[in-house]
Amino acid sequence: MVNEKSGPVRVGLLGIGTVGRGSFEVLSRNDDEIRRRAGRSIRITKVADLDTARAKAVVGDAAEVVGDARQVIDDPDIDIVIELIGGYGIAREMVLAAIEQGKHVVTANKALLAVHGTEIFQAASREGVTVAFEAAVAGGIPIIKALREGLAANRIEAVAGIINGTTNFILSEMRDKGLSFDTAVAEAQRLGYAEADPTFDVEGIDAAHKITILSAIAFGVPIQFDRVNVEGISGLQSEDIRYAEQLDYRIKLLGITRLRRDPTGVPFGIELRVHPTLIPTRRLLANVEGAMNAVWVEGDAVGQTMYYGKGAGAEPTASAVIADLIDVSRTMATDPGSRVPPLAFQAEAMSDLPILPAAETETAWYLRLQVVDQPGVLADITRVLADEQISMDAVLQREPGEGEQRTDIILLTHRCIEKQVDAAVSRLEALPTVLSKAVRIRLESLV
Amino acid sequence: MVNEKSGPVRVGLLGIGTVGRGSFEVLSRNDDEIRRRAGRSIRITKVADLDTARAKAVVGDAAEVVGDARQVIDDPDIDIVIELIGGYGIAREMVLAAIEQGKHVVTANKALLAVHGTEIFQAASREGVTVAFEAAVAGGIPIIKALREGLAANRIEAVAGIINGTTNFILSEMRDKGLSFDTAVAEAQRLGYAEADPTFDVEGIDAAHKITILSAIAFGVPIQFDRVNVEGISGLQSEDIRYAEQLDYRIKLLGITRLRRDPTGVPFGIELRVHPTLIPTRRLLANVEGAMNAVWVEGDAVGQTMYYGKGAGAEPTASAVIADLIDVSRTMATDPGSRVPPLAFQAEAMSDLPILPAAETETAWYLRLQVVDQPGVLADITRVLADEQISMDAVLQREPGEGEQRTDIILLTHRCIEKQVDAAVSRLEALPTVLSKAVRIRLESLV
Repeated sequence: MVNEKSGPVRVGLLGIGTVGRGSFEVLSRNDDEIRRRAGRSIRITKVADLDTARAKAVVGDAAEVVGDARQVIDDPDIDIVIELIGGYGIAREMVLAAIEQGKHVVTANKALLAVHGTEIFQAASREGVTVAFEAAVAGGIPIIKALREGLAANRIEAVAGIINGTTNFILSEMRDKGLSFDTAVAEAQRLGYAEADPTFDVEGIDAAHKITILSAIAFGVPIQFDRVNVEGISGLQSEDIRYAEQLDYRIKLLGITRLRRDPTGVPFGIELRVHPTLIPTRRLLANVEGAMNAVWVEGDAVGQTMYYGKGAGAEPTASAVIADLIDVSRTMATDPGSRVPPLAFQAEAMSDLPILPAAETETAWYLRLQVVDQPGVLADITRVLADEQISMDAVLQREPGEGEQRTDIILLTHRCIEKQVDAAVSRLEALPTVLSKAVRIRLESLV
Repeated sequence: MVNEKSGPVRVGLLGIGTVGRGSFEVLSRNDDEIRRRAGRSIRITKVADLDTARAKAVVGDAAEVVGDARQVIDDPDIDIVIELIGGYGIAREMVLAAIEQGKHVVTANKALLAVHGTEIFQAASREGVTVAFEAAVAGGIPIIKALREGLAANRIEAVAGIINGTTNFILSEMRDKGLSFDTAVAEAQRLGYAEADPTFDVEGIDAAHKITILSAIAFGVPIQFDRVNVEGISGLQSEDIRYAEQLDYRIKLLGITRLRRDPTGVPFGIELRVHPTLIPTRRLLANVEGAMNAVWVEGDAVGQTMYYGKGAGAEPTASAVIADLIDVSRTMATDPGSRVPPLAFQAEAMSDLPILPAAETETAWYLRLQVVDQPGVLADITRVLADEQISMDAVLQREPGEGEQRTDIILLTHRCIEKQVDAAVSRLEALPTVLSKAVRIRLESLV
């Protein structure tokens, strides 16, 4: 029905698990629609998977199935290689080998890019090929494209995202149903949202991979996974979710990266962090529930924008993989200099702004202290905060139960530097009327 | 600081009002950042405006100012022309003249594209130049790019957007503060959100321009502004906003375009409409308040996604204009066949799916009837609906005041074809117990 400009683009697929199968199926199902847009078909013609029987069951006669990824990489008929092996080891080797063979690469592997991105993008630049990775962050949401192209006129000020669906599901369950962390994790596992070993998600590692990539393309700094400040959600207690709600906040695991400026407006560093965060309930981001993802981006010209959708799953991720295939197909015959740089900025124009250590980051805080219920306690606490130059935004004191001698005081602070809070909390915990270690959760108003 | 690949891209600007000024200022302020991304500077070097004094006050010595747009269009040093004249007359002439001179065009003019788009894109295709228009829909939100590239793997199923900030502000004020439509309009005018004559916004014309463009790039159909079914918000009564809220819905002016499939899944038409719409309060789109814009897109692979940000204003719109300039700068030296087609689909691959007439569109409904407060009234009403094969989702009957003999009955229906509702409403209005014409507002669950 559509005149083809040339034959189909021939794609090799490494690894046909959930996303690989989704990519194969969506490419087949929407072949006509994609051809109407791209001007030519894009076909997965060769698939490598250790489990060749499984691969054959998916692709039938439509593609050749091999057991060795090298047979795909070395095939001169293949234009683009999709890497869906996962992990850092073989995936890295295969991606570098494909680049060396002059293949363009499309990958959904955030761990690989967060850890070995610099090496991979340098190799790609040397060989004049593209490494595309829309699927690596926030699944089907075209956030890489939005940041890298859609908002290219802006000095990006901050990015904050719900970029791990597993933890967002767990937090939604804890809040909705009053579940404990452990029960919510079990529920997530039962429904397939969490792995048998959920560490990678609940400790924030996966979100840290993704925010590291977003930080690089937002600010034009190198990928620096070793500099992310990470705190997961496994220490979260349901009572803090309830207190937050009473104060009109919701707790989300956010990946945050933010440009810091000195009082004259000159940038001096970048924050890069993952942690549970109180967000005002009226913000859209606070209302992103279940396994959904959303990324909030602030630019100096555009102001605040947000991007929402499914962050995982076979077809949403395939949507991003295939969008990359279409982009690569369009530009693979052009001069590499006319392509969008993979990390948004020209390789020779990288910024050396440092990633700030945790102690230098700036946020507001939720602090919960268990205290003796007696007069003067709040005055002692507020005096410590004032001494450390921390100003308060709100205080909530739980009415102690009948006969109880202890209660909870919750403080919301204004923005301050983390080392100020470190100092204040040490002094607070030393007060004789304070009975426990402080519960500390960061708070972002997103304005 | 950055090695330039070649000299700056030279841009001519037609019309330096709010957005023109914003574009000039953001390009200057972020010159370094844009150069780090694009590899070269992009400069507005020539500005045409009838008010040359105003133009000179903005650009100083940085650009030449002329009174005649032709002097920009005919300048052989100019690579790209930004059209910010507005309207259909001179803007059309100038855009066509620029195309004829082999210039690429960037425009924010949705009215022009909605009405003369076919002519303009055909001329551009003939001359091998690009007409870019990210700024024409939803201001700074990169929704054109998301639909055209980010979601290119998908069969788009539906797009629904809050794409007119003026009406969203008015509706937010009506709900928040219980204002009447007229008072809310006056407030919007006082704050600069509405024009002295607000007809264009409140009657849905502006939203209709934008959804027409979105429909074309979502489905690959021609731009057909004359086929949009449009209803504005000027007839909305505050009591319906209150009733909707009691039922857990909010009323938004949505632009909606949706693929319709027959029972076997084969598409047979496209809906294209603008109207006040009840949306469940728990949906993100229902929580987009004030002058903000948001566009919800459903694709067969990606599922539901949403894009949020400022839909108007100098710098948000400039953000989109400049993103287009960067895109055009990158691809202007390449083969036109390798560029993203302006309307997302290859010109020879357009679909002839018809835009359906209003009577054939399918939605759920909110119906309010003023009735005599006596037994059997609801039974009569539900019988009429059942006769017309319309099933009900909810009923709300207002408790009549002391001594009142009339009351309101509110019905929420399930989805049905509009002509069914037309027939049912005619019969309902003829019932002796129904005292007024029915208030009819469409309802979309966005699932």
